[in-house]
Amino acid sequence: MKELSVNGNNTARSVLSLLSEARLCFATAESCTGGLIGQMITALPGSSEIYAGGVISYSNDVKMKVLSVRKETLERFGAVSEETAGEMSEGVSKLTDADIAVSVTGIAGPTGAVPGKPVGTVCFGLTTKKDTKTYRKQFGENKTRDEIRALAADFALSLVLEAGKELS
Amino acid sequence: MKELSVNGNNTARSVLSLLSEARLCFATAESCTGGLIGQMITALPGSSEIYAGGVISYSNDVKMKVLSVRKETLERFGAVSEETAGEMSEGVSKLTDADIAVSVTGIAGPTGAVPGKPVGTVCFGLTTKKDTKTYRKQFGENKTRDEIRALAADFALSLVLEAGKELS
Repeated sequence: MKELSVNGNNTARSVLSLLSEARLCFATAESCTGGLIGQMITALPGSSEIYAGGVISYSNDVKMKVLSVRKETLERFGAVSEETAGEMSEGVSKLTDADIAVSVTGIAGPTGAVPGKPVGTVCFGLTTKKDTKTYRKQFGENKTRDEIRALAADFALSLVLEAGKELS
Repeated sequence: MKELSVNGNNTARSVLSLLSEARLCFATAESCTGGLIGQMITALPGSSEIYAGGVISYSNDVKMKVLSVRKETLERFGAVSEETAGEMSEGVSKLTDADIAVSVTGIAGPTGAVPGKPVGTVCFGLTTKKDTKTYRKQFGENKTRDEIRALAADFALSLVLEAGKELS
């Protein structure tokens, strides 16, 4: 898994290539991946053309204050929910005006599991000028923190790739 | 250099240990490291206690709009300057209310060098409730992008560590 998280992976390279060609740019709102997606894409020279940046909203405070996630959403659905993920991607979309905004919030472990949300549960938001979609994945309770984060980052980048294909 | 950027390094572990003990938390504003510092610290379980999150201000737009870096500062001194770095750490300090805020803006290469600022030039800002300090380092023109980013992330974490020692 190490290769995934160091020098960008194939998905990151595909995102760079497709968005450069289509002249689109994207932004990130990362909770459990904590900057991993940003680091994977910016490891690639040329990424400044297609990556605006984003917010690492590790605390709920930053989710609310910087990304405008509503307190009621966090209280009712929890930080790891499709509802929160959707507000995160909408928040960073507004902040950066990027064509595509992706968000990740999940339980990377080893602790943090709650009833109905075991370790490995990760939610995603994807906002374009058209709409916001949300996703929920279970990457496996027995995976390590590093593995779950790498899989989550890769899935988020694959969402950006799909959105880029649709928009271009 | 790979070990540095994957699972956090010794500096990241020292930051986690010291800030946990002292009940302090920090935030990041990353340009050329693009999320690497956030990813290094959040790779460590328990980091949510001491890391609020931050902003990946890869574009100048995000530097201005999210971190309140002044347009005049960017025009007069450039994105890679101690002046911009200081406004970045002050900006993320205000956004997150963290005890310690650190910023990084530099030229990781292979392109992007300008007269007087070769590849490897990286500026840092460090804001605490007390004051803001800025730093400029030259990590070496012949280093790779990965190496420069890893060295910059490590130096930023060492600044957080020093500030944490002072505050605790």
